[in-house]
Amino acid sequence: MSILPTFQNIAQAAERIKPFVHRTPVLRSSWFDRQTGGEVFFKCENFQKVGAFKFRGACNAILKLPKEDGDKGIITHSSGNHAQAVALASKLCGYKATIVMPENAPKVKVAAVRGYGAEIVFCKSTIDAREETAQKIIDKTGATFIHPYNHPDVIAGQGTAVVELFDEVPDLDIILAPVGGGGLISGTAIAARHISTGIKVFGAEPEWADDAFRSFHSGKIEPVLRTDTAADGLRTSLGTLTFEAIQKFVDDIITVPESSIIRDMRHVWERMKIIIEPSCSVPVSVIMDRNIDLSGKKAGIILTGGNVDFDHLPW
Amino acid sequence: MSILPTFQNIAQAAERIKPFVHRTPVLRSSWFDRQTGGEVFFKCENFQKVGAFKFRGACNAILKLPKEDGDKGIITHSSGNHAQAVALASKLCGYKATIVMPENAPKVKVAAVRGYGAEIVFCKSTIDAREETAQKIIDKTGATFIHPYNHPDVIAGQGTAVVELFDEVPDLDIILAPVGGGGLISGTAIAARHISTGIKVFGAEPEWADDAFRSFHSGKIEPVLRTDTAADGLRTSLGTLTFEAIQKFVDDIITVPESSIIRDMRHVWERMKIIIEPSCSVPVSVIMDRNIDLSGKKAGIILTGGNVDFDHLPW
Repeated sequence: MSILPTFQNIAQAAERIKPFVHRTPVLRSSWFDRQTGGEVFFKCENFQKVGAFKFRGACNAILKLPKEDGDKGIITHSSGNHAQAVALASKLCGYKATIVMPENAPKVKVAAVRGYGAEIVFCKSTIDAREETAQKIIDKTGATFIHPYNHPDVIAGQGTAVVELFDEVPDLDIILAPVGGGGLISGTAIAARHISTGIKVFGAEPEWADDAFRSFHSGKIEPVLRTDTAADGLRTSLGTLTFEAIQKFVDDIITVPESSIIRDMRHVWERMKIIIEPSCSVPVSVIMDRNIDLSGKKAGIILTGGNVDFDHLPW
Repeated sequence: MSILPTFQNIAQAAERIKPFVHRTPVLRSSWFDRQTGGEVFFKCENFQKVGAFKFRGACNAILKLPKEDGDKGIITHSSGNHAQAVALASKLCGYKATIVMPENAPKVKVAAVRGYGAEIVFCKSTIDAREETAQKIIDKTGATFIHPYNHPDVIAGQGTAVVELFDEVPDLDIILAPVGGGGLISGTAIAARHISTGIKVFGAEPEWADDAFRSFHSGKIEPVLRTDTAADGLRTSLGTLTFEAIQKFVDDIITVPESSIIRDMRHVWERMKIIIEPSCSVPVSVIMDRNIDLSGKKAGIILTGGNVDFDHLPW
């Protein structure tokens, strides 16, 4: 039975992955400060390896494996940033990675995973087909499955971003991160609560993928009901571990409309000259829509990723 | 009669503008290093105030003015980054700025200039109409005209970017910058030659706006012959001062095709997760097309700006 990581686990993860990850910069923008009335600190995981925070969790989970397990191979199913993260982390450890991807996965994502040397096994585009395909390979090879979020070592790895942020800005009042499967917000909340007792931790979700918001209020895991939000990294329901972490350590989940998400993705591009993906702008919209009051406060936002299809922008 | 600035002038400009400009970061990319075989250092003026290096030159020229001149107002004609640069620098100095813009200037650019508090006077979209309109205002008000490139204080200001780059990377072998009117390459070459006697300085131009290339080889200022390059900041012919600086201090001008410019703009977006404008990717294409050999060498590139119309991308 898996249990939640402690702050100690996150601190160990930070040491473990340090030689492999980028220490990403913390950027400011006077324009966003003026718009919100606060001081906003952007932790730029869009500059992380593979272009997303996901590399932290995959790296920690794979580095922690005993070598005899790693030598049997690593496996996951994903068509998103976690696939690239597992592929690169496996390569750096000298392990063979197999990524199960839906047969309709975008070519650029398939090429990126292949570029990191992973083997790709295609399957039908349903969650059942993905799990069945992965299980068959595990039964045959003994490969280790790395879940994208409901995994204590993955959660601990994702929590390392906010540890670095606190290193640079020790007196933050508020932390915001988006919620998909919940790995990032779980690691972030566990770490932030330990470092600062007074901190407020908010999860941000699209209105069109508000399963964590509903779960937080109903007290049980609610499924995602639609999959059409532009924030394609957040179309996932919570896992048992991440739901537990959110219940224990997160102050609130705040939802924002699609129009705000797309508007603020563009604001970040225009004002900060950095590329963020739509999922990444969801917590930015929380502060731009003034769903929380930042007056005189210091807020940290984890900018989660920058993998965008430049042929299909959401505006 | 204007004369070229010296390194001393550039060093003074750096001190003068220091409290007003961002010290922009120098970024690396392992992908670009692998592609070119060298070590590439990107000086990110796309993160400069107003989103372009142009703020350095305008700021230096306006700060250097005697107050009694500044109080009569500042004027320029431009529909590009120089317009925003003059507007913001004037505002910071407490002077009134008038920007003469063509009546067909993009609305976003007009709004940006207005946002910095400048007055906009529209005119027909010819260079004669612009100059005539500006001259009428100068005759009436005594305002000081800030030329976008053929001005010693503007050239000195543009040269401060490479001074900062050398602060961080003292042993550069090569410096590259794009050439439009020539203000940036002039300031860059004067400074780089003084700091490092062995440095090679290259100007980069689109094949479709190769006036500096032709001027460099013919020994006289040649006009731009077409205005359809995607690198819209480089559709300008050289001035007398910038031509003199290029003849004296630049090793060569290298031209690249449109397809490379657009391809490498996208490479920077995808691999570095930062926004650069088309003009900015021209020197990147010089190294990606292997027009110069970077094997085992350290090359600095000035990334000039990040002001892009996201509704009209060049791919």
